[in-house]
Amino acid sequence: MSLIVQKYGGSSVANAERLMNVAGRIKAAKEAGNDIVVVVSAQGDTTDHLMDMAMEINSNPSKRELDMLLSTGEQISIALLAMAIEALGLPVISLTGQQVGIKTSNLHTNARIEAIDGSRIRKELDGGKIVIVAGFQGMDDNDDITTLGRGGSDTTAVALAAALNADMCEIYTDVDGVYTADPRLVPEARKLADISYDEMLEMASLGAKVLHNRSVELAKNFNVPLVVKCSFNSNDGTYVREESIVEKMVIKGVAHDVDIARIAVIGVADKPGMAHKLFKALADQGINVDIILQSIGRGGTKDISFTVSKSNLKQAVDIIKGLLDELGATDVKYAEDIAKISVVGAGMANNPGIASLMFEALAEEGINIEMISTSEIKISCLIPKEDIERAVKAVHKKFRLDSVA
Amino acid sequence: MSLIVQKYGGSSVANAERLMNVAGRIKAAKEAGNDIVVVVSAQGDTTDHLMDMAMEINSNPSKRELDMLLSTGEQISIALLAMAIEALGLPVISLTGQQVGIKTSNLHTNARIEAIDGSRIRKELDGGKIVIVAGFQGMDDNDDITTLGRGGSDTTAVALAAALNADMCEIYTDVDGVYTADPRLVPEARKLADISYDEMLEMASLGAKVLHNRSVELAKNFNVPLVVKCSFNSNDGTYVREESIVEKMVIKGVAHDVDIARIAVIGVADKPGMAHKLFKALADQGINVDIILQSIGRGGTKDISFTVSKSNLKQAVDIIKGLLDELGATDVKYAEDIAKISVVGAGMANNPGIASLMFEALAEEGINIEMISTSEIKISCLIPKEDIERAVKAVHKKFRLDSVA
Repeated sequence: MSLIVQKYGGSSVANAERLMNVAGRIKAAKEAGNDIVVVVSAQGDTTDHLMDMAMEINSNPSKRELDMLLSTGEQISIALLAMAIEALGLPVISLTGQQVGIKTSNLHTNARIEAIDGSRIRKELDGGKIVIVAGFQGMDDNDDITTLGRGGSDTTAVALAAALNADMCEIYTDVDGVYTADPRLVPEARKLADISYDEMLEMASLGAKVLHNRSVELAKNFNVPLVVKCSFNSNDGTYVREESIVEKMVIKGVAHDVDIARIAVIGVADKPGMAHKLFKALADQGINVDIILQSIGRGGTKDISFTVSKSNLKQAVDIIKGLLDELGATDVKYAEDIAKISVVGAGMANNPGIASLMFEALAEEGINIEMISTSEIKISCLIPKEDIERAVKAVHKKFRLDSVA
Repeated sequence: MSLIVQKYGGSSVANAERLMNVAGRIKAAKEAGNDIVVVVSAQGDTTDHLMDMAMEINSNPSKRELDMLLSTGEQISIALLAMAIEALGLPVISLTGQQVGIKTSNLHTNARIEAIDGSRIRKELDGGKIVIVAGFQGMDDNDDITTLGRGGSDTTAVALAAALNADMCEIYTDVDGVYTADPRLVPEARKLADISYDEMLEMASLGAKVLHNRSVELAKNFNVPLVVKCSFNSNDGTYVREESIVEKMVIKGVAHDVDIARIAVIGVADKPGMAHKLFKALADQGINVDIILQSIGRGGTKDISFTVSKSNLKQAVDIIKGLLDELGATDVKYAEDIAKISVVGAGMANNPGIASLMFEALAEEGINIEMISTSEIKISCLIPKEDIERAVKAVHKKFRLDSVA
């Protein structure tokens, strides 16, 4: 008997009909002889709706109370899904993050999972039950409800799969799998059958919305085999696992991200420790920084530029304003009209031609590159936001991602 | 410094404007130098809305999952009210039933409070915070979420007031207090300044919707002083406490209840233990039985009639059907077109004229009395539902409740 952890996103459980569809899938997996643990997100736009209710009352509520509020979205989902499975005549039980024993840090709205006590789930599985778990939420050591931030439900699913030593973690979403580029931008984009953790990590962190990088990191660290599938059909999905089946092409896909903003700290004192001071202050507040560019010191000062997600922009700028004196800096500027395009693929470091091919594609379209960042398996360029669609199409075509099998 | 427990019902917190109004009242009470614990219900029709969502998926969901679902309504309320108080600049924290340590029985959807661990609340009060507690919910010894059933939030408030040894428990609702009759039926009805626990208990159990009898029972047992007030104005409310201020009149009010159904078990074997068997089976499922009438045995059988609330009717009839053989009974019948009218007042037992005055009022209106039940402080009559409005007006007038000061 295999233990399978399934995760269904908000659009997959958005209404009664979809919940019954999901219940049917769970039933099939259970009757195939598997133990099933299911993680669900809040229905459809429930989280946005709850957020609107909060904003109507207080434009700047404490994060603790926000977590108290937002965590109800998943609690509603698990109860309704359990009822849908009851309607199909199968034994089932729903559990909140607290009941599962998902212990997290106390960084409200962006907490990290620190430990999972799987005993309650194991007890219910031993009793023959399908177990439905609320994604996105946990409890800190003060017994307060926390939420995990972006990608939280995926992270819950992978963490549970790791804690329970599951045989497979199935992530159900509204797309068929991982594509060589966003099919909405590039109709010729192909679905990948396999991708390695590292490649997926880059794709995810670079804007492919299928999986959040936190969940992929966790899967990599605990070697949890993942598969990304669509909850609305029975197409094969994309497997994410350690040994990617070797394909002929080096480049796996083109990712893009328009949800970023660039911040520039001007006139930072050119002495040791300034960057550390700056980025530690941001990290302490849970703000992730992406591409970093530091100018060469001139006249005793330097400029530090970097990107953050748009949702962190205001908070990041506020933090930096409070640090200007300490950094010896004169100003902080920001821009939101930028986007990031990336090519991802293992073995890139051994193919020096990749970067120049990418630059060539952008140059042919007359697109200006503002910042560049590279790693073992990706190259990212920051470009004007208005050019992103043309850029993705051109790069996808340049690497022949539509035709290489 | 006094400790006050306030409870606000669903209509008092139905939207952002009303939440801000409630937050303002709480602020005033806090700034008057009191420690404040606030219990809130789910907003407006949230509970009905959640119930509709459940019914769309499963017309007969398990009660455990129903509790998982319904308890989110109060969790949303406490978070939003905490945010409203934050917006006024006061320190505040919201707590679920689980976080407060409200331990209950495991009878889902109708659980009883068994113990309250007040340590978390005391810690937060000591830290200077206003504490907002989710009404209607608790946790059983399996760590599962339970709800308390009808009158649950009032019960939470009184139980907390008892556990914390509060100086006053203020129940805020959409009416001004306890009236001599339902003002919607009897415009001349007067608001009572004071009423004793026992009188309130009868009024509540007889259909006065202001307070549920469970909360009044609890208040009486722990001698918790209550006041019922309107959350939309600053009128004086009605105090409920041990020593009611003596007024000239004996009768405190006329209560009525149309949410009842009558069940008749026909042809029960006329031997000892039958009634016990019948009512124990109902009690085991948490079904409260009201007026009971037993016919005199004839030909070795008897009929047992009693009333239950309409919401329990189906379940009660099903239970009895399964017991027919054991009771030696031949049939179970029921009727929903009935209503109950009651007069309530301490000292009634010493005033034999009260009952006949009530019967006279009903007779003058040509209203048939189907069952009668009396206690130390009330007389109840079961009458046809269609006659209830005329009956309440006639009895209220007969006892001169509109004019006696």
